[in-house]
Amino acid sequence: MTSTTATTEGRFRQPLAPAFFDRVQERVRDLLVREGFDAVLTDDTEDVAYLTGFFHHPSERPVAVWLGSDGRCVLMTPELERENAVRQSARAEIVSYAEFPGIRPPFAALAGAVGSGRGLRVGFSTQMTNERQTAATSQLADADFRATTLVTRARYRKFDEEIALHREAARITDVMLEAGVALLTGAIASGGELPSESELAAHVTGTGVKTMYAEHDDVIVVSPLAGGLVYAGANSAFPHGLPSGYRLRDGDTFMLSLGCAVGGRFVEGERTFVLGTPTTEQRLYHETIRRAQEVGGQAIRPGAECRSANATCLAVIEDAGLGRFIRHRQGHGIGLGMHEPPWLEAGDDTVLEPGMVVSNEPGIYIPGHAGYRISDSMLVTETGSEPLTAFPRSLTDCTIAL
Amino acid sequence: MTSTTATTEGRFRQPLAPAFFDRVQERVRDLLVREGFDAVLTDDTEDVAYLTGFFHHPSERPVAVWLGSDGRCVLMTPELERENAVRQSARAEIVSYAEFPGIRPPFAALAGAVGSGRGLRVGFSTQMTNERQTAATSQLADADFRATTLVTRARYRKFDEEIALHREAARITDVMLEAGVALLTGAIASGGELPSESELAAHVTGTGVKTMYAEHDDVIVVSPLAGGLVYAGANSAFPHGLPSGYRLRDGDTFMLSLGCAVGGRFVEGERTFVLGTPTTEQRLYHETIRRAQEVGGQAIRPGAECRSANATCLAVIEDAGLGRFIRHRQGHGIGLGMHEPPWLEAGDDTVLEPGMVVSNEPGIYIPGHAGYRISDSMLVTETGSEPLTAFPRSLTDCTIAL
Repeated sequence: MTSTTATTEGRFRQPLAPAFFDRVQERVRDLLVREGFDAVLTDDTEDVAYLTGFFHHPSERPVAVWLGSDGRCVLMTPELERENAVRQSARAEIVSYAEFPGIRPPFAALAGAVGSGRGLRVGFSTQMTNERQTAATSQLADADFRATTLVTRARYRKFDEEIALHREAARITDVMLEAGVALLTGAIASGGELPSESELAAHVTGTGVKTMYAEHDDVIVVSPLAGGLVYAGANSAFPHGLPSGYRLRDGDTFMLSLGCAVGGRFVEGERTFVLGTPTTEQRLYHETIRRAQEVGGQAIRPGAECRSANATCLAVIEDAGLGRFIRHRQGHGIGLGMHEPPWLEAGDDTVLEPGMVVSNEPGIYIPGHAGYRISDSMLVTETGSEPLTAFPRSLTDCTIAL
Repeated sequence: MTSTTATTEGRFRQPLAPAFFDRVQERVRDLLVREGFDAVLTDDTEDVAYLTGFFHHPSERPVAVWLGSDGRCVLMTPELERENAVRQSARAEIVSYAEFPGIRPPFAALAGAVGSGRGLRVGFSTQMTNERQTAATSQLADADFRATTLVTRARYRKFDEEIALHREAARITDVMLEAGVALLTGAIASGGELPSESELAAHVTGTGVKTMYAEHDDVIVVSPLAGGLVYAGANSAFPHGLPSGYRLRDGDTFMLSLGCAVGGRFVEGERTFVLGTPTTEQRLYHETIRRAQEVGGQAIRPGAECRSANATCLAVIEDAGLGRFIRHRQGHGIGLGMHEPPWLEAGDDTVLEPGMVVSNEPGIYIPGHAGYRISDSMLVTETGSEPLTAFPRSLTDCTIAL
């Protein structure tokens, strides 16, 4: 769920200028023409924000964008969202339908604006559900529909304005990581009870949200606006576990897996910590993923295939004899989506290009003990790549003495 | 994103017994046979939790359930989630694939378990994306696939164990509403600054999360575990606005639109408040939706069509001459999904039955002034319906004196 929020005056500042959306739409139109389409139709929440600047809560009520090679850009919303789209200065003609499911089907509103599609080759997003696809194609009944990943691919290379938003999200993510460490060192210094996973999660999330509201009047709220996973000990051995009431204790490995979005552009920053004096086993696990992440980061460079960066990165773990603890690939694209293609994985031969942002997050998960993962969102540059988050990564830096 | 979380010992208690899932699967199998299918395939996160008890973060990595009329129930997960599914005692055979997108396609793992589908009529969920549908049908290439809403419909009537979870979620939602009011009355009593929307949101969400962790060792974390929308003044005129840095002030109308999930079963509770002495206009708006909600609640009863309850409810607003401020229907189904069918709307002729849970939430939105909405999750009973949340609804009860 995403939305632009009010400033203190209840008014809004769209973080990106109309000219930005014109360039986005031009890029997508160029792709349309190159791939033999007359128009593209997408109901993907992130695509909608990318093409028009309109952020919304996705729900059963379809919101979709029709972008034609003829220059038209039509945003279809439920009546519930029309005023919200207007105040966000959505860069599109807006057409609305009454409600969902409605007596008149939602996509009839779109057909009312663009016609039945006669003679048009229309690409629809592969992320469209069968329900939506059926609803759309039955209203635009004369169009020749084909599934396409065209808008997804257009989003791979970030514009400069987007990179600036990613950088700011990275700065706030670092602030959140520091806040997590400070909560723990504060509790230790005062001799009080250590926080539970959920208390730590609430603290870092609260810090991120507060920082964004204090410093931005163009916050784009996404869910989570700022937040992430906080897990310790054996619970962290589940890559996608979630914070529990578990209270941290001496000797625990724990992970702060944080992130936030500025102007809707995400960043992740994840660090693995040890509370107390690390054991030999903890040193081995931590140093192995730190090296895998370092080597993996060097492998992220223009011209490299995603699958080869992934192989180079994970080989460090395998060569250390810890391959049996791998549970996932090196990383994924990041942008308007927290996870989006391309995938740094064995099955993706996409070639990395300057302006792409991808996560670099090798991890190992030792059942019954803990998980270890270090992640930065990496900007692919002309000569290599650059981590957007700066929080230190070594075990020395990530040991919290008791 | 959803997951079962660790107890303080890092272990888990599946909130529902194996016998519950056996009854769920039996209900779905009965429907399969009745509608001429040999199996059903769904990758809907909520369907997966419903059929097997496995909660997970949805992502690009497919998680799907195959339920056959022959008695088989197969859960396909990425390797990343396999151990998580095991510890959640997922009521299914588990098959896993390495990673996404993978060299071997994910759905090949499912085909490895159930075969190519020769001679089988398989229903796939209408909520499946085109990408997933293509991936699944190309691996189960011999099956005769047809889209179906069968599992969605099986979820309409809640089992007793589910209703107990809804009731507990409602109790915690009431606690959150009370906490929001207490934060404001406390600030007023102490003469301090009033909270901002985002501070109020953080407080009620924190209260809900803390309550759940303190009182449950079988919390199912969903996103949001507990939370909602908090908005005041003109910002509340956008039905799906989000909390901003706006600080409440004398005379504001504001809304606490809260909810939480226990055992994955959602409840919403929403109240509209006035800070200070209500004006004549605020009294009219508030009383109109209070009556619409009361009349609408009486219209929610077994045997009634969703569209007729909706018409009865919204007519109260229209008869008061405020129809131009309506932006949405009366309500929606609620369960494992925060929004799920059936829809209390003009285009849905579903007949209400005992055991269904639906929201009753008429609202009006006056541009530049505020929004007014009162919502309860209603359990359809043998004789009528019953609101699960109890927080008082009248303007007298929802006025906070300054």
